[in-house]
Amino acid sequence: MTDNPVDSRTPLTLLGTGDMGTALARAWLAAGHPVTVWNRTASRAEALAAEGATVARTAAEAVAANRLVVACLLDDASVGEALDGADLTGRDLVNLTTGTPGQGRARAAWAEARGARFLDGGIMAVPPMIGVPESGGYVFYSGSPELFAEHRDTLAVPAGTRYVGADPGFAALHDVALLSAMNGMFAGVMHAFALIRPEDIAPKDFAPLLFGWLTAMAPAVHQTADQLESGDYTKGVVSNLAMQAAGIPTFLRTAEEQHVSPELLTPYLELMEKRVAQGHGDEDGTGMIELLKKEGSH
Amino acid sequence: MTDNPVDSRTPLTLLGTGDMGTALARAWLAAGHPVTVWNRTASRAEALAAEGATVARTAAEAVAANRLVVACLLDDASVGEALDGADLTGRDLVNLTTGTPGQGRARAAWAEARGARFLDGGIMAVPPMIGVPESGGYVFYSGSPELFAEHRDTLAVPAGTRYVGADPGFAALHDVALLSAMNGMFAGVMHAFALIRPEDIAPKDFAPLLFGWLTAMAPAVHQTADQLESGDYTKGVVSNLAMQAAGIPTFLRTAEEQHVSPELLTPYLELMEKRVAQGHGDEDGTGMIELLKKEGSH
Repeated sequence: MTDNPVDSRTPLTLLGTGDMGTALARAWLAAGHPVTVWNRTASRAEALAAEGATVARTAAEAVAANRLVVACLLDDASVGEALDGADLTGRDLVNLTTGTPGQGRARAAWAEARGARFLDGGIMAVPPMIGVPESGGYVFYSGSPELFAEHRDTLAVPAGTRYVGADPGFAALHDVALLSAMNGMFAGVMHAFALIRPEDIAPKDFAPLLFGWLTAMAPAVHQTADQLESGDYTKGVVSNLAMQAAGIPTFLRTAEEQHVSPELLTPYLELMEKRVAQGHGDEDGTGMIELLKKEGSH
Repeated sequence: MTDNPVDSRTPLTLLGTGDMGTALARAWLAAGHPVTVWNRTASRAEALAAEGATVARTAAEAVAANRLVVACLLDDASVGEALDGADLTGRDLVNLTTGTPGQGRARAAWAEARGARFLDGGIMAVPPMIGVPESGGYVFYSGSPELFAEHRDTLAVPAGTRYVGADPGFAALHDVALLSAMNGMFAGVMHAFALIRPEDIAPKDFAPLLFGWLTAMAPAVHQTADQLESGDYTKGVVSNLAMQAAGIPTFLRTAEEQHVSPELLTPYLELMEKRVAQGHGDEDGTGMIELLKKEGSH
């Protein structure tokens, strides 16, 4: 791709120029792609005109301009509203709008019924990471494998690409799953900082210890995966659930001593106690997943 | 230390030969330290006799044998019971028994009143990591700086040492804080695996993505520390709380679609909503720490 002259770069349309859309547009413009932009509030799109973007007056006009159409809007409903009057026949619609797996699947069926190929995306980056390969940001894609193969190089311009399957719900599923895990980690981090806060311990001295411990423990996800694959939650256990549960009073009492609400930790500790009470004290934590399954599960 | 002949290695007493105590004893014996052991259930200590340990019949006898006394018992109450009839005068008591910061402080006062110097420890390792330097396991120590300085080399035999201050509660505090953060991370990991479980996605394909994302996001602890030091929770924010909170319905709806109970995530999401509702939508997540403070806080 880098050997192509600028005028052979795939032209594309970008719907939505919020912080993320603007960062995407800038990355494509900087790489020499002709970009047509549209935004519901036109002033936000016009700032990009000075950087070489063509500003369309309507979403339908923007869609008519190019075969490759990228949507980065507020939510799934905004996608439906923006594209309501547009002719999608023969278009390649790449939806980078945040949504659920179900919304991704429904939007794929909706787009295909209108004659478009569809790819859903989940952006694992914040705007400052877009167009900065060394930031490590990337985008999950799922849906039409043909669309992905054809536009892979163009899609790789703003951030790395990870195609996770033909099911158009998988990109959102991976996105939400990883962000959920991150929120869990951040909840634990918040509790940890709250515990040390009343003491004469500098957060900057504590942070490297916390970072070191979390990154040393993160490889446990491979053990969890291995146990889920085998169905044997006692496989390779080094600290079983009964032993872990024996530490619960120390966690709660420490929070109490430090005047910290244990609310971010208690659901996990309660789930642990429940699993042990059900006779699974010899297992690893993995078995707790059984208790998260709700009625109506597959 | 490694230049000393075997017979000059510091002799020590170890109280408690459960899985962890046994691993500790083996590491010291392997390094040539004379070790006297005691365990309430004598049979568990006797297994170490074949490896060169001297088995004491009572805890008092074990304490009398050596100046350096390490306790690795079930809980803080067990320490008090085991040492009830022992003469601690002139002894260096290192307590590796799991406990709270308050228990560490109270036990320090108790030991000092009995004429001993006291060091509390929090073991950041599971037994298989003991005596295996490349495992990365280590022990937090706090309390008497003189005791630590004098026995540092001996204490470093089973695992790395990190001295975190003269306050005898700090070792337990660091221990519990790091384990609490880990539990948060594991709660998030459990939710993530639960989300993908109903789908045709191999846990072994998902685990590397999860590992990569968590380790890429873990450096955020430094940003949190920086904001706590400055007291400015809007400093360097890239994805503010209002934007993060806008994603909450997607988290909850995805859990619903995947038939997963959101119980491990909801407290964090609710705390986020609460902070935003209080007018702090322009902050980073750090500000949520204010909501964890309970009445009676310092």
